[in-house]
Amino acid sequence: MAFQKPTGTQDLLPGVVEKWQFVEGKARDICRRFNYREIRTPMFEQTELFVRGVGETTDVVEKEMYTFKDKGDRSLTLRPEGTAGVVRSYVENKLYGEPDVTKLYYIGPMFRYERPQAGRQRQFHQFGVEAFGAVDPAMDAEVIALGYQFCLDLGLKGVQVELNSVGNPTSRAAYRQRLLDFLNPMRDTLCKDCQSRMERNPLRVLDCKVDQDKFKDAPSILDSLDEECTVHFQKVQQYLTDMGVEYRLNHRLVRGLDYYTMTAFELKAEGIGAIDTIGGGGRYNGLVGELGGPDQPGIGFGIGLERIQLILEHQSVGLDAVKPLDVYLVALGEAADREVTKQLFKLRQAGFSAERDYLGRKMKAQMKSADRFHARYTAILGDDELERGEIALKAMDSGEQRTVRLDDLVNELKPLA
Amino acid sequence: MAFQKPTGTQDLLPGVVEKWQFVEGKARDICRRFNYREIRTPMFEQTELFVRGVGETTDVVEKEMYTFKDKGDRSLTLRPEGTAGVVRSYVENKLYGEPDVTKLYYIGPMFRYERPQAGRQRQFHQFGVEAFGAVDPAMDAEVIALGYQFCLDLGLKGVQVELNSVGNPTSRAAYRQRLLDFLNPMRDTLCKDCQSRMERNPLRVLDCKVDQDKFKDAPSILDSLDEECTVHFQKVQQYLTDMGVEYRLNHRLVRGLDYYTMTAFELKAEGIGAIDTIGGGGRYNGLVGELGGPDQPGIGFGIGLERIQLILEHQSVGLDAVKPLDVYLVALGEAADREVTKQLFKLRQAGFSAERDYLGRKMKAQMKSADRFHARYTAILGDDELERGEIALKAMDSGEQRTVRLDDLVNELKPLA
Repeated sequence: MAFQKPTGTQDLLPGVVEKWQFVEGKARDICRRFNYREIRTPMFEQTELFVRGVGETTDVVEKEMYTFKDKGDRSLTLRPEGTAGVVRSYVENKLYGEPDVTKLYYIGPMFRYERPQAGRQRQFHQFGVEAFGAVDPAMDAEVIALGYQFCLDLGLKGVQVELNSVGNPTSRAAYRQRLLDFLNPMRDTLCKDCQSRMERNPLRVLDCKVDQDKFKDAPSILDSLDEECTVHFQKVQQYLTDMGVEYRLNHRLVRGLDYYTMTAFELKAEGIGAIDTIGGGGRYNGLVGELGGPDQPGIGFGIGLERIQLILEHQSVGLDAVKPLDVYLVALGEAADREVTKQLFKLRQAGFSAERDYLGRKMKAQMKSADRFHARYTAILGDDELERGEIALKAMDSGEQRTVRLDDLVNELKPLA
Repeated sequence: MAFQKPTGTQDLLPGVVEKWQFVEGKARDICRRFNYREIRTPMFEQTELFVRGVGETTDVVEKEMYTFKDKGDRSLTLRPEGTAGVVRSYVENKLYGEPDVTKLYYIGPMFRYERPQAGRQRQFHQFGVEAFGAVDPAMDAEVIALGYQFCLDLGLKGVQVELNSVGNPTSRAAYRQRLLDFLNPMRDTLCKDCQSRMERNPLRVLDCKVDQDKFKDAPSILDSLDEECTVHFQKVQQYLTDMGVEYRLNHRLVRGLDYYTMTAFELKAEGIGAIDTIGGGGRYNGLVGELGGPDQPGIGFGIGLERIQLILEHQSVGLDAVKPLDVYLVALGEAADREVTKQLFKLRQAGFSAERDYLGRKMKAQMKSADRFHARYTAILGDDELERGEIALKAMDSGEQRTVRLDDLVNELKPLA
């Protein structure tokens, strides 16, 4: 009986996994420069956390969660996104008691029961940041700039930020009414989903893929912002302009839930048709309170790593090549085999990457193996050399070959390190 | 309503997460040197994979798995260990078709519903390697040496390998009979678990914590090994001795399932009483076939990262200190604030780690913040300096202060990079 991976999951194998390591390395490096530190929260949480933190009326909570009971009859859910767990941890561990702004990042798997398609998996992966404690618009600009620069660091082309403000709950209530006044006359011409969203969460109507064209003349939320939100939004834009971050306003970029406030944004790159969004985020000044914490503001984003891989490939971005092996050791004969195994371990202890044959192959096959690993050197030991305490060392690029003392092998290779 | 993390899970917060990054960095580096490449398999698999791959009669499968149905009514299980998924992937992706030995490593979360205790969590983490395709005893020695050297690289004291051979199914059947002949007379004096193990899996009796002392004179499996297994085991020991890997034989180290063959080992370090085992592994020449693949040999180990953290702390191993921040920027006044935000981004784009204040704090509080981040430099910008296009740069170790042109700030700090 042979087994298959579950639908909507992937194996990341050698040859592909290096592309993921590359992207994660860039994420960790930009977080170092922006002074964000890593947090790791569990793969599952109490189900209620996501119902509250993601929102009861969202597709994620209604249809897409992996929810199960543990053997203690507790309802647990595999995390469908990263923010709720980080906020839970921020509150539970009282990080709000620290003197500085709490700046965190995470990288890891998330789980949603969706129909798998290109760049969308049931187990998918996100890189995200969350900054708690500051309302300063420079904080918003920093988070956006971090995401923007991350895309540039990856070598992506056509990177752009789409920016909006969804105001505070007061300005949003005013906008909701203006939007409904606009939508009501066309209600019967809208799709079923839109009609249902009009009841529950009218701002989400603007997201509809089907009815897009009908909303060209919809009122802009920016016209409903109050003084505080307007000033905040202007300052965010000023900072972004100062920093040279390319952005454009998109007043249809909305998030329907009440704990989202002010800044909302998406990161875009030159993609495959409509598949050009890399991630998105925004300010959520109401979320920490909603999840039982003190009234602390927050802002963050989440970036889809499957999506990044898809767009990197589409744009043919060249990644760091596979690292060459330092040394491939070849033994000819049984006595040489023992010595080679010993030398192999010494080389590895000294920090070199080194390999030998484990399949009893002939010398020619071993040299092919050395080529597959892009070995920079091969070292060949026969019984004659062994008797003299020597080994033949060959530089694979120049073909130059010389004999070195076995005791000196590690030192001879030092210039490689 | 405030939320708590699920029982048996942990939040890894800044200050602690760096210790995990340190250990993972060492794992990745030793795998590079030993020419193992990363594989990532899904967090969950079909339940049947673990029933077959871990063993129907094991505690893990009988009591400890997180099993649930997805919305398509498939039985899925959060992976309770790493090997089964890697073997599934090796078979499904036909990696056995490649010309070289397949050498893989993984690092990630595993899940078992156990009673949480020190160093044991329901979501726990393992670093493991698996090597497929080679029966050469030098392969066994390599895998053991990798685990051993990993512990040394971490700076652990008292690192030792415990080593045994559990033979092939033929020699094990002979041993099982000899062991039962030894156990039968004392059957009634043994604990309930042992009596049950005698029926199902007699070799596991030797693992029993309760009855340990009664088994001092139990026959050794090493006396039941056939010629092939004996020679293999001698060669493994010879290689380990050549390499200087410290090991001792422990003939009670057994694994009961039929697909475990020949070499079995555990990695130990100076621990807390009985808590001294870091990980273990062995050869499993029957597992790939058991999981529907071709008849390919394999060997690997798994190391518990919670256990590593516990022992590192117990041994007071000093880890790399928190990396200092390169520059903390202080703005005095609103115009300076804009310029500082711009300079901050330029520094970060150039590769420096840099930070500013987001809480409108006074200069003194900002300098304290710079200290908390171990800033190597602070750069202070007032309106006067701004007008002259300059900024005051202070080295925090020497206290030395000088004025540099704003345009030159990045270049002035280059020696830091």
